[in-house]
Amino acid sequence: MAPSAPKTQYFTASSLDGFVATPDHDLGWLLQFGDVGSGYGAFYEQVGALAMGSSTYTWLLRHHVRPEGQAPQPWPYAVPAWVFSSRELPTVDGADVTFARGDVRPVHAAMVAAAAGKNIWIVGGGDLAGQFLDAGLLDELIVQVVSVTLGAGVPLLPRRVATPPLRLASATPYGAAWVELRYEVPKGAA
Amino acid sequence: MAPSAPKTQYFTASSLDGFVATPDHDLGWLLQFGDVGSGYGAFYEQVGALAMGSSTYTWLLRHHVRPEGQAPQPWPYAVPAWVFSSRELPTVDGADVTFARGDVRPVHAAMVAAAAGKNIWIVGGGDLAGQFLDAGLLDELIVQVVSVTLGAGVPLLPRRVATPPLRLASATPYGAAWVELRYEVPKGAA
Repeated sequence: MAPSAPKTQYFTASSLDGFVATPDHDLGWLLQFGDVGSGYGAFYEQVGALAMGSSTYTWLLRHHVRPEGQAPQPWPYAVPAWVFSSRELPTVDGADVTFARGDVRPVHAAMVAAAAGKNIWIVGGGDLAGQFLDAGLLDELIVQVVSVTLGAGVPLLPRRVATPPLRLASATPYGAAWVELRYEVPKGAA
Repeated sequence: MAPSAPKTQYFTASSLDGFVATPDHDLGWLLQFGDVGSGYGAFYEQVGALAMGSSTYTWLLRHHVRPEGQAPQPWPYAVPAWVFSSRELPTVDGADVTFARGDVRPVHAAMVAAAAGKNIWIVGGGDLAGQFLDAGLLDELIVQVVSVTLGAGVPLLPRRVATPPLRLASATPYGAAWVELRYEVPKGAA
């Protein structure tokens, strides 16, 4: 069977009211569910390269790789990563990270080559996903809608994608805690 | 069989990114689907009274009851309605509308009495639903998540309901166009 064409996917958790993080980047609302992201394993298996913005990267360093007062953990991704930033950021030993800035298109081409037939994961934030959308490079939006509202925070996707609309491909509830919504991005959404 | 206890429900359409209206109150994103709200009929059958805020009411007057350059239509609801407003608003002939302001609790008691065992519908906007939530009077959140993002607009529910979280009761997709998510509001969410 021929493999399906690689896809560029924005996979993220979000509150019901469309925020991927609180204003102060507290993750208690998300971590209370423990196993949020049980769909994540199957998703990540198909990922060959990933991209994130500088806020996501520095959050990851501060809370995971070099947490204050806790044991440091290794960089969590084996696949090559691109970090978009207009400023100089600290590096992580042993992490396959390339820093980038500006136009996402040449970076996307490099990611596709590195992914060797596997998918491209846009980790976040929403504005970086929006830049891939603007360039016509985003194929799918996969949102774990967690059963909370936050009232304020960092927006899921600060873009209008309405006419043509997204196409809901599936809605998979995980108990009472969250529902995974998968959307195809229409051609011409940019 | 004894009827189940009447519920107070916030039933609304929303974009995936948590907006119930665009900044300029354009509804093209919603109306393009034509039959959005096919779950609405079964829902509305169980409604015995409803409440809305002044923005929702004036929108209804301007676009439905007295649309500029188009034939006026009758007030759309047979059940008694309460409109919350701190200012004087025009009335509609033949509409069972009571104007209210301030604390939602006495109004809720009057609505429960008028509904005679049926449910209470909070039509919107999000802040009015939030006031019922704050008072511990909101039982369910029923959101038709339409397959669009708007990027900006009127928030679904400008409140934090996170610990304890909402409880996802069901997720029902309607083709590629939208998914109805039903949540129970936990006691102590206020």
